[in-house]
Amino acid sequence: MLSDSKTPLVGIVMGSRSDWETMRPASEKLDALGVAHEVRVVSAHRTPDVLFSYAAEAQSRGLRAIIAGAGGAAHLPGMLAAKTSVPVLGVPVQSRALNGLDSLLSIVQMPAGIPVATFAIGVAGSANAALFAASMLAHDHPAIAEALEAFRQQQTDAVLQHDDPRV
Amino acid sequence: MLSDSKTPLVGIVMGSRSDWETMRPASEKLDALGVAHEVRVVSAHRTPDVLFSYAAEAQSRGLRAIIAGAGGAAHLPGMLAAKTSVPVLGVPVQSRALNGLDSLLSIVQMPAGIPVATFAIGVAGSANAALFAASMLAHDHPAIAEALEAFRQQQTDAVLQHDDPRV
Amino acid sequence: MLSDSKTPLVGIVMGSRSDWETMRPASEKLDALGVAHEVRVVSAHRTPDVLFSYAAEAQSRGLRAIIAGAGGAAHLPGMLAAKTSVPVLGVPVQSRALNGLDSLLSIVQMPAGIPVATFAIGVAGSANAALFAASMLAHDHPAIAEALEAFRQQQTDAVLQHDDPRV
Amino acid sequence: MLSDSKTPLVGIVMGSRSDWETMRPASEKLDALGVAHEVRVVSAHRTPDVLFSYAAEAQSRGLRAIIAGAGGAAHLPGMLAAKTSVPVLGVPVQSRALNGLDSLLSIVQMPAGIPVATFAIGVAGSANAALFAASMLAHDHPAIAEALEAFRQQQTDAVLQHDDPRV
Amino acid sequence: MLSDSKTPLVGIVMGSRSDWETMRPASEKLDALGVAHEVRVVSAHRTPDVLFSYAAEAQSRGLRAIIAGAGGAAHLPGMLAAKTSVPVLGVPVQSRALNGLDSLLSIVQMPAGIPVATFAIGVAGSANAALFAASMLAHDHPAIAEALEAFRQQQTDAVLQHDDPRV
Amino acid sequence: MLSDSKTPLVGIVMGSRSDWETMRPASEKLDALGVAHEVRVVSAHRTPDVLFSYAAEAQSRGLRAIIAGAGGAAHLPGMLAAKTSVPVLGVPVQSRALNGLDSLLSIVQMPAGIPVATFAIGVAGSANAALFAASMLAHDHPAIAEALEAFRQQQTDAVLQHDDPRV
Amino acid sequence: MLSDSKTPLVGIVMGSRSDWETMRPASEKLDALGVAHEVRVVSAHRTPDVLFSYAAEAQSRGLRAIIAGAGGAAHLPGMLAAKTSVPVLGVPVQSRALNGLDSLLSIVQMPAGIPVATFAIGVAGSANAALFAASMLAHDHPAIAEALEAFRQQQTDAVLQHDDPRV
Amino acid sequence: MLSDSKTPLVGIVMGSRSDWETMRPASEKLDALGVAHEVRVVSAHRTPDVLFSYAAEAQSRGLRAIIAGAGGAAHLPGMLAAKTSVPVLGVPVQSRALNGLDSLLSIVQMPAGIPVATFAIGVAGSANAALFAASMLAHDHPAIAEALEAFRQQQTDAVLQHDDPRV
Repeated sequence: MLSDSKTPLVGIVMGSRSDWETMRPASEKLDALGVAHEVRVVSAHRTPDVLFSYAAEAQSRGLRAIIAGAGGAAHLPGMLAAKTSVPVLGVPVQSRALNGLDSLLSIVQMPAGIPVATFAIGVAGSANAALFAASMLAHDHPAIAEALEAFRQQQTDAVLQHDDPRV
Repeated sequence: MLSDSKTPLVGIVMGSRSDWETMRPASEKLDALGVAHEVRVVSAHRTPDVLFSYAAEAQSRGLRAIIAGAGGAAHLPGMLAAKTSVPVLGVPVQSRALNGLDSLLSIVQMPAGIPVATFAIGVAGSANAALFAASMLAHDHPAIAEALEAFRQQQTDAVLQHDDPRV
Repeated sequence: MLSDSKTPLVGIVMGSRSDWETMRPASEKLDALGVAHEVRVVSAHRTPDVLFSYAAEAQSRGLRAIIAGAGGAAHLPGMLAAKTSVPVLGVPVQSRALNGLDSLLSIVQMPAGIPVATFAIGVAGSANAALFAASMLAHDHPAIAEALEAFRQQQTDAVLQHDDPRV
Repeated sequence: MLSDSKTPLVGIVMGSRSDWETMRPASEKLDALGVAHEVRVVSAHRTPDVLFSYAAEAQSRGLRAIIAGAGGAAHLPGMLAAKTSVPVLGVPVQSRALNGLDSLLSIVQMPAGIPVATFAIGVAGSANAALFAASMLAHDHPAIAEALEAFRQQQTDAVLQHDDPRV
Repeated sequence: MLSDSKTPLVGIVMGSRSDWETMRPASEKLDALGVAHEVRVVSAHRTPDVLFSYAAEAQSRGLRAIIAGAGGAAHLPGMLAAKTSVPVLGVPVQSRALNGLDSLLSIVQMPAGIPVATFAIGVAGSANAALFAASMLAHDHPAIAEALEAFRQQQTDAVLQHDDPRV
Repeated sequence: MLSDSKTPLVGIVMGSRSDWETMRPASEKLDALGVAHEVRVVSAHRTPDVLFSYAAEAQSRGLRAIIAGAGGAAHLPGMLAAKTSVPVLGVPVQSRALNGLDSLLSIVQMPAGIPVATFAIGVAGSANAALFAASMLAHDHPAIAEALEAFRQQQTDAVLQHDDPRV
Repeated sequence: MLSDSKTPLVGIVMGSRSDWETMRPASEKLDALGVAHEVRVVSAHRTPDVLFSYAAEAQSRGLRAIIAGAGGAAHLPGMLAAKTSVPVLGVPVQSRALNGLDSLLSIVQMPAGIPVATFAIGVAGSANAALFAASMLAHDHPAIAEALEAFRQQQTDAVLQHDDPRV
Repeated sequence: MLSDSKTPLVGIVMGSRSDWETMRPASEKLDALGVAHEVRVVSAHRTPDVLFSYAAEAQSRGLRAIIAGAGGAAHLPGMLAAKTSVPVLGVPVQSRALNGLDSLLSIVQMPAGIPVATFAIGVAGSANAALFAASMLAHDHPAIAEALEAFRQQQTDAVLQHDDPRV
């Protein structure tokens, strides 16, 4: 199930295999920033016991953050957060009928007491959850801090060097 | 924690004590129809283990339906349904900012595989969840069937006898 | 009109032939669980008298649940519920302009007194209505109970055995 | 049940006594324009048979229009329209949780084949349904036409004569 | 500009040539019911003077109803209604970004005093506006009444004869 | 009707006297910035002819901008813009049922060809329309430019000097 | 970076190269009206310093208006307005998941004190922002005034000459 | 401006003094968990330069997280994130007209590249942002980790000990 030789610092989980298209940018961004991570399908509704054990063991396994993507009545991020103090980052997957508005509200509108840090609907939110996880780790991992700054400078330079949209 | 001397057929649970105002009509309606039931606060986020054990024991304890009210990122009904085959009836509690639209979508937009029967936002949904639970029990409990028919006739008669809104 | 040799326990009705694409999963799921059922087009607006007689006869014909799919100003589930005490399960069909948000609100926002158990917009809701109907019947039909548990175990196993979305 | 000595040309119906606050302006406007009308509570869900007979007899009783107010899953206007060719005018009553957006969509999003003429949410829509009914009757009833023109001139004059909002 | 040899009873207007796809069903339905009508592009924003003169002359030209389709900030129906007592029927055209929700609210939320009878977003609303116009004319035009009843019976029969969606 | 001795550069119009509460900040802000202006009630629906003549004469009367507030199916700003090339600034008034979302969409979603510059719902939008009008005039009116800069500096200073919200 | 030999009066900026499809009509419309302008990509989030310097220098560089297009959490127009008194015109770009409703609200709902003139979502808003900018410049630039009037007449004539949508 | 004797680890900023009611729970929760923090009003629109310098100095000043509350076109969190790699936590303040839906979308829908971790609308989101900040700090600050675990246990116990909502 683990996909990285190094001990993962971040776990990327998603409610369904079909969410991988949305969550792939999170994994790619973590790879690019040199953040060891694992990727798993964990369904809040179809495998609730796995969800609970995954969350319960997250801290002792050394995870510093969990990125959880889910769509519709997206319970995965909130239920992980209910079972662990490891920071949970939620990514609303764009749903078929309501375009992810349901996913967004189901993830972000957590009651006081159990937080889920929520990002934008779809691939932008997925990439940003990875960047946010990296920024959390940067304090203790200078290499990640450096990679993050380099990425930010690079995306700034990309705009500066091509700021005429007509060519 | 149980509140009724008879073995309860229906469990009414809610995510917070503040949801009782919304869920009281469900309890009152079950009382009126003679359906033994229990009432408990079970928080998906603050007491996830209780949620799991409540759901896991529901069938063996004889519950025929669980009515679950929750607001905001309302995970309670869906997570109960993930842990039991006992039918779960979800009641979206009217939330402060978004008036229960978040509660509704978080409850009703369950993925294929784990159903939650959802009712209207607020007290109307609460009362209706109770009536629906009674209709499920009516086949095996003639007294409930009779009480349900009497209630329906009564509400029809109430409209018929006072159909001029000006007096 | 009947489609099953055995006496149907569940009626699947829909407002238009074009709703069949949405309602087919309900029928397939009931078939898979061994629940005898019938399938019919009944339009609240174009055949209101048929709707009334269908609902009025549901109980005496032995139906234990009616699954009703409709889109837009989706009156079919609510009007069936107005005419029978047999539990009505509503499936909001995804509409063209408003993506089923209109269908969802028209079905779920029933006033206190007449409940409709509502499920997710589209095919997920259709499948879940069937699963919910099966869970209602499970108490009296051990074979359905067994099939339901097998299905739930199967969908759990499917996640467990393929929990790496990248392969 | 009838409230006017003259044979009513318009029927005002509503789903609940609590809708009278919203529907009163319709009645008052019709009174002001000299349009004979009746007022009744007819619930789609609690008195479906009355709804059907009311609609079925509308034409023979001489009704030229039915104004129907309802809130939430507002089925009353659409089901009346399903049972009569007499024009049905729908008024969405402002609902508690969703402010009448549910009422509006449930009334206006009728499928092709059975129309309901829909007006604004709440008292503005109620008054306008009455004005619209009067405009439909104006062709055959010169007195109504005259009253309608007088009302329109009057409301224009009211703006013209007090067009400084600061005094 | 007129398209019918007989004096038109109904005017179909739309804000843009691109609205014709939506408004064509209104014209076809009126043709099918034998209702003489005309069809024109009248833009509230690009040809406001034409809009005003069209509305001002509607009554004297014998129009009994105006069906107006418009999208986005759909001012056409409301401004016609501001300038004539002839009943105005509004059809919200499905807009690009907001799927016609903007069109619907811009048409239906008229203030008290000037009504616009509003129908569903898109082609269903277009067809229904035509049916509603026919129902308004039915009282004075027996042939239209007869055609309308025939159409309604026909659509009922169509459902009755093919009520199994699987074949 | 005019309220200022100096020739007005800006016209503030609103659809109803009840909109004055919303539009007052626009007038006060213009006063504070020394921008001569007039204030009038002009109803798109009740006084369409006044709307047309007001717009038609705006340029020759020397108006450099029209600030138009309206609620619900808020046609006033768009119809003014249809009749004049003088820039029109629209202010969505917060409506009763839909909180001004209808007003906003009715004003901002103008079709290509006739623009309305739209501001926030309610009093914030009203004040901002005035500030925007002042910024348009600043190029040709140094005193307004100076007043505008002073206001902006002042509001910046106000934050700087009291940036601890707890005291 | 400048694209016009003449000193630009209007700056068109956008948050991303992918917004050019939306913003092109603004540039084309300004070209057609003879308004010198420049076009640049300026990202609020990736190049915030460029945003600030662009806004800070706008007035001294002679810009009379800035048209800013952005999607999602569209901060570009508002932050430009925070740093300059030059009028800022915001164009909400249609976003992937929420169709531009997020872009619209992020741009239009500015707090009192810093205005952004907002136009419709997508290409209609883009074209209209250009027309609005031209109307602001018309007072001081007779050639632009003339071109604007010609354009308006032309679009009116286009409707008048082809007002039958069926041919 | 600083409010704590110890070097702050978290900065709480808000766009307006009126946001303090919403942001107070964040400060109180950090106090309860022993997290040194500062509180300031920083307006994206009225004090953009302060916003930039606050963000630019955040890292060197030792801030490990910034909690930013804002309403309406809530640009504060996103613009802070654009200027620092310190993690930014956004809290949507409930706005007057749109109940915070505008605030939520303006904060959460950030484009790929610059993340803002978003929490629920209003006081729940404010408290949760503080809890999340504490969870980020827990790894390096055992006392905070301990306080966080104690708080979580405490809120679980509170539900367990009073799980009958009727007493």
